[in-house]
Amino acid sequence: MNDRKYSLKDDYSEGAHPLILEAIAKTNYLQLQGYGEDEISKEAKERIKQIIQTKSDIHFLSGGTQTNLTALSVMLKSYESIIAADTSHIATHECGAIEHAGHKIHTITSNDGKIAPSDIQNILDEHSSEHMVKPKVVFISNSTELGTIYSLLELEKLYSFCKRNSLYLYIDGARMGSALASRDNDTELKTIANMCDMFYIGGTKNGAMFGEALVITNELFKENFRYILKQNGALLAKGRFLGIQFNELFRDNLFFKLAKHTNKMAYLLEENILQKGYDFYVKPQTNQLFPVFPNELIQKLQKYFDFYVWQKYDDKSSVVRIVTSWATKKEAVEKFINLL
Amino acid sequence: MNDRKYSLKDDYSEGAHPLILEAIAKTNYLQLQGYGEDEISKEAKERIKQIIQTKSDIHFLSGGTQTNLTALSVMLKSYESIIAADTSHIATHECGAIEHAGHKIHTITSNDGKIAPSDIQNILDEHSSEHMVKPKVVFISNSTELGTIYSLLELEKLYSFCKRNSLYLYIDGARMGSALASRDNDTELKTIANMCDMFYIGGTKNGAMFGEALVITNELFKENFRYILKQNGALLAKGRFLGIQFNELFRDNLFFKLAKHTNKMAYLLEENILQKGYDFYVKPQTNQLFPVFPNELIQKLQKYFDFYVWQKYDDKSSVVRIVTSWATKKEAVEKFINLL
Amino acid sequence: MNDRKYSLKDDYSEGAHPLILEAIAKTNYLQLQGYGEDEISKEAKERIKQIIQTKSDIHFLSGGTQTNLTALSVMLKSYESIIAADTSHIATHECGAIEHAGHKIHTITSNDGKIAPSDIQNILDEHSSEHMVKPKVVFISNSTELGTIYSLLELEKLYSFCKRNSLYLYIDGARMGSALASRDNDTELKTIANMCDMFYIGGTKNGAMFGEALVITNELFKENFRYILKQNGALLAKGRFLGIQFNELFRDNLFFKLAKHTNKMAYLLEENILQKGYDFYVKPQTNQLFPVFPNELIQKLQKYFDFYVWQKYDDKSSVVRIVTSWATKKEAVEKFINLL
Amino acid sequence: MNDRKYSLKDDYSEGAHPLILEAIAKTNYLQLQGYGEDEISKEAKERIKQIIQTKSDIHFLSGGTQTNLTALSVMLKSYESIIAADTSHIATHECGAIEHAGHKIHTITSNDGKIAPSDIQNILDEHSSEHMVKPKVVFISNSTELGTIYSLLELEKLYSFCKRNSLYLYIDGARMGSALASRDNDTELKTIANMCDMFYIGGTKNGAMFGEALVITNELFKENFRYILKQNGALLAKGRFLGIQFNELFRDNLFFKLAKHTNKMAYLLEENILQKGYDFYVKPQTNQLFPVFPNELIQKLQKYFDFYVWQKYDDKSSVVRIVTSWATKKEAVEKFINLL
Repeated sequence: MNDRKYSLKDDYSEGAHPLILEAIAKTNYLQLQGYGEDEISKEAKERIKQIIQTKSDIHFLSGGTQTNLTALSVMLKSYESIIAADTSHIATHECGAIEHAGHKIHTITSNDGKIAPSDIQNILDEHSSEHMVKPKVVFISNSTELGTIYSLLELEKLYSFCKRNSLYLYIDGARMGSALASRDNDTELKTIANMCDMFYIGGTKNGAMFGEALVITNELFKENFRYILKQNGALLAKGRFLGIQFNELFRDNLFFKLAKHTNKMAYLLEENILQKGYDFYVKPQTNQLFPVFPNELIQKLQKYFDFYVWQKYDDKSSVVRIVTSWATKKEAVEKFINLL
Repeated sequence: MNDRKYSLKDDYSEGAHPLILEAIAKTNYLQLQGYGEDEISKEAKERIKQIIQTKSDIHFLSGGTQTNLTALSVMLKSYESIIAADTSHIATHECGAIEHAGHKIHTITSNDGKIAPSDIQNILDEHSSEHMVKPKVVFISNSTELGTIYSLLELEKLYSFCKRNSLYLYIDGARMGSALASRDNDTELKTIANMCDMFYIGGTKNGAMFGEALVITNELFKENFRYILKQNGALLAKGRFLGIQFNELFRDNLFFKLAKHTNKMAYLLEENILQKGYDFYVKPQTNQLFPVFPNELIQKLQKYFDFYVWQKYDDKSSVVRIVTSWATKKEAVEKFINLL
Repeated sequence: MNDRKYSLKDDYSEGAHPLILEAIAKTNYLQLQGYGEDEISKEAKERIKQIIQTKSDIHFLSGGTQTNLTALSVMLKSYESIIAADTSHIATHECGAIEHAGHKIHTITSNDGKIAPSDIQNILDEHSSEHMVKPKVVFISNSTELGTIYSLLELEKLYSFCKRNSLYLYIDGARMGSALASRDNDTELKTIANMCDMFYIGGTKNGAMFGEALVITNELFKENFRYILKQNGALLAKGRFLGIQFNELFRDNLFFKLAKHTNKMAYLLEENILQKGYDFYVKPQTNQLFPVFPNELIQKLQKYFDFYVWQKYDDKSSVVRIVTSWATKKEAVEKFINLL
Repeated sequence: MNDRKYSLKDDYSEGAHPLILEAIAKTNYLQLQGYGEDEISKEAKERIKQIIQTKSDIHFLSGGTQTNLTALSVMLKSYESIIAADTSHIATHECGAIEHAGHKIHTITSNDGKIAPSDIQNILDEHSSEHMVKPKVVFISNSTELGTIYSLLELEKLYSFCKRNSLYLYIDGARMGSALASRDNDTELKTIANMCDMFYIGGTKNGAMFGEALVITNELFKENFRYILKQNGALLAKGRFLGIQFNELFRDNLFFKLAKHTNKMAYLLEENILQKGYDFYVKPQTNQLFPVFPNELIQKLQKYFDFYVWQKYDDKSSVVRIVTSWATKKEAVEKFINLL
């Protein structure tokens, strides 16, 4: 089982944080209501509401694609479309789930995974009649697929632009933990909840077995959302397992602690990569690093480590993607550094 | 947390079998491939293939609705439809997931949850041109939503009818464990795999946290099925958790042992209900019992037990649904019996 | 070309009323705006608005299935469903277009093609949670697929029931002309427009080449409806041809005159069928007649006439469907009568 | 009714060719089979088959969007996608009909509306796993949305590339007439039919009231196509009107004669525009011209003519789109030339 190489390939190679497993074991024989209507799920939702301090509906789903497709479906009429970065997960790595659900995605070319009001304005300008789709939702990820984060100011500008233009803002928070734990971050969960219409807090990539917490703040989308979940196969009979996980993640700040460790390991890598004289394709902010390495070095590293070769940089070097997780071990990071 | 009443409401009120939780804990820090391509998932699939002895593709999904909608979508062209009992889960309790995926369900009135070739023939006869949909898949559940099971002979007749009429047969096995463990059963997993085009083996209702094993035996539907999973949000990043569960369920026959206990508790209830002179709405065969109780008795039972009142029987009595699970305690069953 | 038999099979076997063809020829070289935004289309809409005297949006579409599927799509969220008679066109003869658009149809067994509030109430009672779809639109046809019509009182009861239960009422008016021209009719286009949320006025089956006028009276469904049309391929580049047809149909009451002739021919048939001692499967009200004929007589009639044998009545006789149209000739009807 | 300005805005501003109207009038009282199964429709299909000399199924539909969405739906599984030029009608002007039908469109940046194998190869290279959609259909228009046409060699290269890569080739022939009548054209309908899996011959933009003839040459897509038509509301009850139109268009080469006139008017314009010293944004080949005019000239022309200002060229001039049709009058063209 993968015994030679250490994986820095993604943040979902390990299982779940032990406190989660313990809580599952401890409550195992409790008889609870099915389909997420159990008390532990309610408790978990209350914990999140305490933090975001915003009137909202919260639903727990199993994964990111499922969350994006159900959430975005609810926000859009059949002829409405989504604006997103060309690097966004929905545009590239969800096997056309959004189009399968009936909606076009307009992509904005982005070097850092982020988009700005001016990019969106261009798309609005081009769509002016019933012969074309009607752009309606702006989709961003925080952190982005390139590991960058949105500043408070950027978010404010985006959201006020959206409101002025009758657009909705949706935030994919698969790696929200790492974003909030970034040294560059000046937002918090509460401010984010107030600067969009819907967003989700990713559990899978921050220590859960699986699970994302969808937070609906716009009243328009709250009604009957459980129907949407059920219809899309997103309502687990034993919904308790989602509730238990988020209950632990948001008890005693486990969610934030795990993200902090994740980033700490990334920053340690970054510091040493820079020290050895290597550059980054995108300036690191969270747990995804995109260093440019000589191809020879890459081959050497690959003997001991698993990671993605992202793209060719020039004839002699390539961009690789290094990802740390809640479970990444310091010794592994140090071994990696030694190899550089 | 539900501390007064004991639930006989369904088979998903408790957590998961301890051996599953142990296996999860034991493998927790192993770094494994994502999206179900890990070695434990492969091992689990091999265990199932050993049992069914049939060339097949196996995929692990999170729940029954998700499994039904992805599987049936693959079997049908846009204008093709499904024939099912009016009591079937897809026709009643999946929030229109199949229609949402684009397909009509023809329902056959059924008193015992089962359907027969003659019922299907009637529907075929009525659909003869492009002005109508084209029936293509026969959907059955085993055990059915009324707790009954299909005999080997019934299955053989159904499947040969389907083949003669260019129809596909799909079996919803949410409670396949309880069906196979029925005292009346004369099939086994291997025969079932050879008598349909696709079926699934339910984990959620037989001791797993969540999870269903979809078995595709018809070559036509194997290609690119992982695309379908991804597109429908059914591919978990940490797919290992599905693999681990089925690996335990099919190691040392745990799956069959749990179902046996489940049925044993149901039969104990049945025996005593009959002894006390009460009748059943449908003759019990598995873990779902539908006794007819006087309304007064129901009120008395409801003080200590949770269960569904299924429907009115006459002015003085009602049909209730009693369901046992892998975790149902003998003492609880005895207490229930004493109350009768 | 069908030179021996006269068709009483349907009301779309002939071309279009000559006044329509004349208007098309007369305006042929006018350069007009595309996609239904031309002045003749506007004039046609004004004519209809003059009659219905109701604030409404009107769109011209090409056929009934197209109209039903676009209109009903707009009225329903993904998890909402439709209630209709089991004889309704959407449930039987539109190749699953509604399910393809994502929605379940609940059918009510109906002997006369009509449905009543009590039938609907039963379905509402059965649908109470997110595990089931949510009934939202009541679909009726007027005249129905069995040639019957709704009285003013029936419509009032239905619509007020719908409003009390937050349901929408949609009326398929493929044969609205014949319904309004019925000797039993006590409604008019204006009252109908005020007793539903959307309905359509059928042109195809009342003298047009093709075309249905969808009338949207509920504000909720007016916005951006042209996007829906375009997306579903329902916006003709030369939309003028729809406009011209309805402009003629509603200039000088042509629409009503054609329907009157259609029914007159049907009543003449009915009178003589009764006189000869034959009965009807459904009491005739409009241009669709369902007499019960001895099988021998049917064979004799089929030598000279085309019509559908609807269903077996008993061992010696069958129900047939006889349909008259705007172009049905009196001599043909008389020949038919002579054969009886 | 637009009495001052002459429209050179599109090729669907006028009605239909008089021979079509005559044929409609002449056959008006014939009783014919419904839904396109009449003898005139069959005759029309035979005429086309005589020309293309290829085993094929032909269906008549009402418009381009409807044709594209039904045809492409049949060619694609849910997770498969389409590759097209960024200027293609399906990507820009069909209100997301393709995405509404569930499929992603990959767009290739194109200056002349055409795409080449190398562009397609890039997209194939980027799509390699079930996390991404699977490109399956190459969509081209001939003539393109920029008025250019594909040469025989280009088509051959494209189609052989598609076959080597298990892709299907679909040709949108909304303006196939003008393409084939181009002075630069070296293909014919027969060669085109042999160089793709499906294509359509546009009637609407070449003298018909409405109507496109979809030609299916790939066996895979022939079965049950009428179900697809019915389900999408594309089967007209009086299908005869589509048949009659194509019967006239392909009797005595009317289709080709109309296209020839259309192009002749365009070439006359082109010649004089060049003579006056103006340039073209795209080199003209068919009936769509994209001259670059000074803004002052545009204002002057707009007093007498209707046309689209396509895009800004520089501070002083813009690209406009001039389109001629089967009905464009030489005097109008001469007046336009005089204004230059």
